[in-house]
Amino acid sequence: MKFIHTSDWHLGRQFHSVSLIADQRAVLAQLVAFIEENPVDAVIVAGDIYDRSVPPTIAIELLNHVIHQICGTLNTPMILIPGNHDGAERLGFGAEQMKNAGLHIISDFEQMLEPVILRSQSAGEVAFYGMPYSDPETVRAALQTSVSTHDEAHQLLAQKVREHASPTQKQVLISHCFVDGAIESESERPLSIGGSDRVSHEHFIDFDYVALGHLHQPQQKGAAHIRYSGSLMKYSFSEQHHKKGFTLVELNQDGFVSAEPVELTAPHEMRILEGELNTILEQGKTDPKHLDYLLVRLMDKHAILNPMEKLRAVYPNVLHLEKPGMLIGVEQDMASARLSRSEIDMFRDFFVEVQDCDLSAEQERAISDIINQLTRQ
Amino acid sequence: MKFIHTSDWHLGRQFHSVSLIADQRAVLAQLVAFIEENPVDAVIVAGDIYDRSVPPTIAIELLNHVIHQICGTLNTPMILIPGNHDGAERLGFGAEQMKNAGLHIISDFEQMLEPVILRSQSAGEVAFYGMPYSDPETVRAALQTSVSTHDEAHQLLAQKVREHASPTQKQVLISHCFVDGAIESESERPLSIGGSDRVSHEHFIDFDYVALGHLHQPQQKGAAHIRYSGSLMKYSFSEQHHKKGFTLVELNQDGFVSAEPVELTAPHEMRILEGELNTILEQGKTDPKHLDYLLVRLMDKHAILNPMEKLRAVYPNVLHLEKPGMLIGVEQDMASARLSRSEIDMFRDFFVEVQDCDLSAEQERAISDIINQLTRQ
Repeated sequence: MKFIHTSDWHLGRQFHSVSLIADQRAVLAQLVAFIEENPVDAVIVAGDIYDRSVPPTIAIELLNHVIHQICGTLNTPMILIPGNHDGAERLGFGAEQMKNAGLHIISDFEQMLEPVILRSQSAGEVAFYGMPYSDPETVRAALQTSVSTHDEAHQLLAQKVREHASPTQKQVLISHCFVDGAIESESERPLSIGGSDRVSHEHFIDFDYVALGHLHQPQQKGAAHIRYSGSLMKYSFSEQHHKKGFTLVELNQDGFVSAEPVELTAPHEMRILEGELNTILEQGKTDPKHLDYLLVRLMDKHAILNPMEKLRAVYPNVLHLEKPGMLIGVEQDMASARLSRSEIDMFRDFFVEVQDCDLSAEQERAISDIINQLTRQ
Repeated sequence: MKFIHTSDWHLGRQFHSVSLIADQRAVLAQLVAFIEENPVDAVIVAGDIYDRSVPPTIAIELLNHVIHQICGTLNTPMILIPGNHDGAERLGFGAEQMKNAGLHIISDFEQMLEPVILRSQSAGEVAFYGMPYSDPETVRAALQTSVSTHDEAHQLLAQKVREHASPTQKQVLISHCFVDGAIESESERPLSIGGSDRVSHEHFIDFDYVALGHLHQPQQKGAAHIRYSGSLMKYSFSEQHHKKGFTLVELNQDGFVSAEPVELTAPHEMRILEGELNTILEQGKTDPKHLDYLLVRLMDKHAILNPMEKLRAVYPNVLHLEKPGMLIGVEQDMASARLSRSEIDMFRDFFVEVQDCDLSAEQERAISDIINQLTRQ
């Protein structure tokens, strides 16, 4: 049996006030195309399908479209759980009515013990258990227990699923949580403050596969069959070197066989460019990826007029600008440097910047005269 | 064939800042109980299912619950269209996946020409065509035509449905619009300004039944088979004498047979009480419906201290207070009346109001002395 494990789609997300919906649409089209060419038995989405509990209409339409293609046209079952960004009740609307069409949205604890059972020749019956995103408060209220940490909550839930599981079936668990020791990215929203959101991978070890969501970097933790697929695409500049995509999982009669990352490429990558303005502008002229979403770090040591405007003339999607070059040695020198530069020095910098040529001797004299008159007053 | 025609549920509505969800839940439970005892072939909801395009979670949960009972437990198909209060794309999420479970949400014009076809011995095949709420702008954009009024838009849509319709089937049209000449209520939101939202009933005359939504008073318009079921419950005090509920429709081989209103009763009625404070307080003590949502019109002609507090002691759900009694003859007399009343007169009124007894002779002397001292200054 082969299935796709994906998570953290964050449909409707904005990045530096830019909507990412077109990129999300393009990346999901690649996912659909993959399934079309490489049929799988199921597609799992391990939470954070939307970026927020009340998603924008455009995100709802995109999810609807993707579901229509995967469940409808390609006749491939989908199993979804809400993450900490999703509104479980909103996402779960009509879940009961959608089951027969192969769309399984598992958004409460009762449904957690009603696994989606799929059959294949290679692996026999496989039971997919979805654990909706569960902070300790929710678990305490829903199950009338006294758990106080994410770890205790997940230990209890995993145990409940294990008790329910049939030995004649393989078991896949879907969960949205932070497994202790796994690597964070900048684009995740913490589940709680101060590290109390960490969950031990030990609770998950007995499953045949654990499809995790929440962390945006693809990774395994504790064992090869306990994995994060990572987010659908990059959601922060700190992820510029991540390979994003989904995980293709294979099970057989003996359980876990393999988990292979498959890359998806967003039309706009998120990249950091570092260098002096002129170098960046020059390379931009021939950069085939000049439409990428960029953070630019200008290393120039002198002031620059309207750098954003200049950069956007070649890289239209510069979303953020840093000027660390302006800060080099700043602690020691800033006060004295400012004081030691005369008005005429500063005007000369400004003139070069605006006119792109040096002051002529005559211009230099003229501005000197004016400044002298002014400073003498 | 028998089906239920209902509309304008407005789930999630607030009334004078009070949530009506408990009343909506109770009324819908009566609807479900009716179907349980009197099986029908379908339940139609002709728009304004939610009160707003982004409904509160509690409203989504209630709709989910009702759908689960009607489509699931009672195995009765439901056909829903969005109204002007609903967000069509939000409401339409997963519609394709829900069809097989008997839940039909018709939220775009393509789906309008894919009728839900139900069969019965008495009426043969009946095609239910849902016309999602359509202002002229939407119709213009979706169908690339030049309609400019609601009337033209609905004429065109009805004509498209008629062209599609098969002569071997009965046709039921579901629409959310304002049929010209029908009676408005205070709780409807106008579809457009200045009467340009009116639609002629002539466009609908050839259908076997037209299930309308938008107007909150149950009524027929133009013919017995073109009907508004009215809203689920009262949504303004002006509707105090409306009978709310749903319409039970019967069709046979020859088409329309009957449409019978069936009443639903909200736990809290909306009523207007008119009279003097003491009379209302007195009757409240034995009023079995003292928890109703009330507008109270106090006819007393003198000032009353804290009337709301007094009323709510017996009628906890007084939501609005009017004092027309205070205004009688006010135009002529107010200025002179105020001026002609001495301080001692006003204090006497106040004392009676607070203490519920007259000033004693001694008290009268004391307050007179104090006032005299003060006014002499």
